[in-house]
Amino acid sequence: MKLKRRAMVLQGGGPTRVINASLAGIIKTSKSKNIQLFGSYHGIECILSQLQNSVFDLSNIPDSKIDEISKSPGAALGSTRKKPSKKECQRIVHSLIERKIDCLFYIGGNDTALSLSLMDSYAKSISAPIIFIHVPKTVDNDLIMNDHTPGYGSAAKYIASLIRGIDLDNSSLNGIYIAVTMGRSSGYLTAASSLARIPGLSNSGPHVICTPEMDFKEEKFLSQIERVYSNLGRAVVVVSEGISTMINGKQTELINSIQQKNGNGQTEIDNFGNVQLSGSGLLADYISNLIKNSLDISRVRADTLGYSQRCFLDVYSEVDFKEAYDVGKRAVDYFVIGGHSASLILIANRNGSYSCDFGFASLTDVAGKVKKLPKEFIFEDIYDIDDSFSYYATPLIGQPLLSVSNFLR
Amino acid sequence: MKLKRRAMVLQGGGPTRVINASLAGIIKTSKSKNIQLFGSYHGIECILSQLQNSVFDLSNIPDSKIDEISKSPGAALGSTRKKPSKKECQRIVHSLIERKIDCLFYIGGNDTALSLSLMDSYAKSISAPIIFIHVPKTVDNDLIMNDHTPGYGSAAKYIASLIRGIDLDNSSLNGIYIAVTMGRSSGYLTAASSLARIPGLSNSGPHVICTPEMDFKEEKFLSQIERVYSNLGRAVVVVSEGISTMINGKQTELINSIQQKNGNGQTEIDNFGNVQLSGSGLLADYISNLIKNSLDISRVRADTLGYSQRCFLDVYSEVDFKEAYDVGKRAVDYFVIGGHSASLILIANRNGSYSCDFGFASLTDVAGKVKKLPKEFIFEDIYDIDDSFSYYATPLIGQPLLSVSNFLR
Repeated sequence: MKLKRRAMVLQGGGPTRVINASLAGIIKTSKSKNIQLFGSYHGIECILSQLQNSVFDLSNIPDSKIDEISKSPGAALGSTRKKPSKKECQRIVHSLIERKIDCLFYIGGNDTALSLSLMDSYAKSISAPIIFIHVPKTVDNDLIMNDHTPGYGSAAKYIASLIRGIDLDNSSLNGIYIAVTMGRSSGYLTAASSLARIPGLSNSGPHVICTPEMDFKEEKFLSQIERVYSNLGRAVVVVSEGISTMINGKQTELINSIQQKNGNGQTEIDNFGNVQLSGSGLLADYISNLIKNSLDISRVRADTLGYSQRCFLDVYSEVDFKEAYDVGKRAVDYFVIGGHSASLILIANRNGSYSCDFGFASLTDVAGKVKKLPKEFIFEDIYDIDDSFSYYATPLIGQPLLSVSNFLR
Repeated sequence: MKLKRRAMVLQGGGPTRVINASLAGIIKTSKSKNIQLFGSYHGIECILSQLQNSVFDLSNIPDSKIDEISKSPGAALGSTRKKPSKKECQRIVHSLIERKIDCLFYIGGNDTALSLSLMDSYAKSISAPIIFIHVPKTVDNDLIMNDHTPGYGSAAKYIASLIRGIDLDNSSLNGIYIAVTMGRSSGYLTAASSLARIPGLSNSGPHVICTPEMDFKEEKFLSQIERVYSNLGRAVVVVSEGISTMINGKQTELINSIQQKNGNGQTEIDNFGNVQLSGSGLLADYISNLIKNSLDISRVRADTLGYSQRCFLDVYSEVDFKEAYDVGKRAVDYFVIGGHSASLILIANRNGSYSCDFGFASLTDVAGKVKKLPKEFIFEDIYDIDDSFSYYATPLIGQPLLSVSNFLR
């Protein structure tokens, strides 16, 4: 009798709204292909710490439980930010050999692909026949080779939906509203706010959108806000947490330049002079004060949209959910037909109706690299996103946003 | 032929997710009762500024448009934070007399009730037969005489839903997560986060809840977080923007004491003498740093939940929506049967299945007063909300939250 093949699945990096759909795709497909599937907690952390019971069999989870998990935010197996050293990658490979694992599925972003490529190259060097498959996810949508990544469509929908509501709230009481979105190095999440606009309604917001790919200049930014405000008495402004500015010929994150102005050198500090960046209101408060101090506008409000962008319970794109499930399923199919170590990639077709197919790239192609928002989506003269972005992103968010109106616009 | 009765409707204060359902209730019922209904922009602002076209007929809006507006966030007529002086109230009354308005419906919170009571008392003093009806709304749920207020159920649902997703995200990567909610003087919104907990799952968050009614003591707060963290390796903490602490024998908002310590915070005082809380990350950053500096925990993240609490497109309670519509309808019915100036109040019945009825209080009973979270919902020894709160609040959020699970808890 042929031995059952054995595989393991891990989750890494920041969770997305649909990361567990990929997990469900892997669990269910493994079951149907008679693969004994194991999981471990918090990515590579528990394997490295060699805790007891850190590896467990996922083959016999009832379908109803898998379905519930597939629709739950967060990483159901736990996640990790840990980047393993070469030595740690070697230890992981030996742990997999000991456990007779034939294939490792690791759901994650470009850091995860990097970890896998290190493990793969070590395994090859000792002729260990383990296949390493990167299953892509990231709300940032910044994996190269991919049209888009699972997790992005749902986060984009959340942001667009939130900003459409905010735009109505802002038109009720006027003034300036600023939202700071996730997306440190890539502007896709920030750009998604443009989907909040109501086609044909020229005064619907957001009115100013600034991504990390644009050169943030205070004067240009303020004069655009002032223009909108003098027309409408209000403005909705969306900026990325990673907006950057040219300092001494070098594009520098604004947050760093704020810290330098505050006199604290290289360390990341917040309102209180303490080290902090993520989950902090520093940038939002800075921009809010910039507007208050420079323009004659009294009502200025800023929100940092925060972690709900990647885990909000009630909003996900059903297109994103299906693709996230499918990418998990395809990873298992690929292993079964004898594929080599690879990163799964998403290939979209927008001629006629939208469809998505899957392909494979080498791990090193995707590892550690960042995809930026292409120039075609960005304006030169103003902080805004071109309408062509909507053609790209609308299919990814699935069902359209609720249509809304009021008596004011 | 009897002259058509004429009424006007305005919206005031912070919008809610369902404030336009009340407007729709007033518009549709006025139509069916043959009342000529007018609206004006931004509460009392446009009437006072005597702009042209600031008052317009709402009698002939198509039902399909009213339905779309009823489901839209924001105040469809525009809102205002303006608190009119006695003199301005007199001017408004004279403007209503000029326009032959028999009844003013003003949708708003306790400040709106106060404005109405001033107008009513002036109108009475000059024997102007105008009826002033306060139609309640507020996400804060802080109107006295009311079991709850339209707008609260939807905001409560948004917060509970958001925190249930956050709790899974937090369990994926561990560490401390802090959410700062709206609700400056009343803890109802903060308490709503307790509805995120999964019954029977003792380690589901939030694990620490602090409302303005509790005395915030750093040591007590930190030791509770440390206890949770040492058990679970993580904690989800929810605090109100208005948490307060005892300073020199006086309960003082923590944000005030931070701003005094900090020196560089820009303090904005609103029309009602309140320090601006929402739209700033100050409190969240302060608490985040307090935890980092006092406990040996590296991953601490804080979000200020922001304006989406009152205007998020995709989440509303269908119970709240219906009650908001009904309160508008009842206001018109009450005018038609010859009621006097009054504030509509919501009376709930929780014996057996939940139901809600409506009653009337005098404007001065509701005006300017604040309902606090009752002691029965609050613990003495720890920062948490009693389970009995769930009996109170669960019917208000309508359909239950999505049920979720993972492998970690």
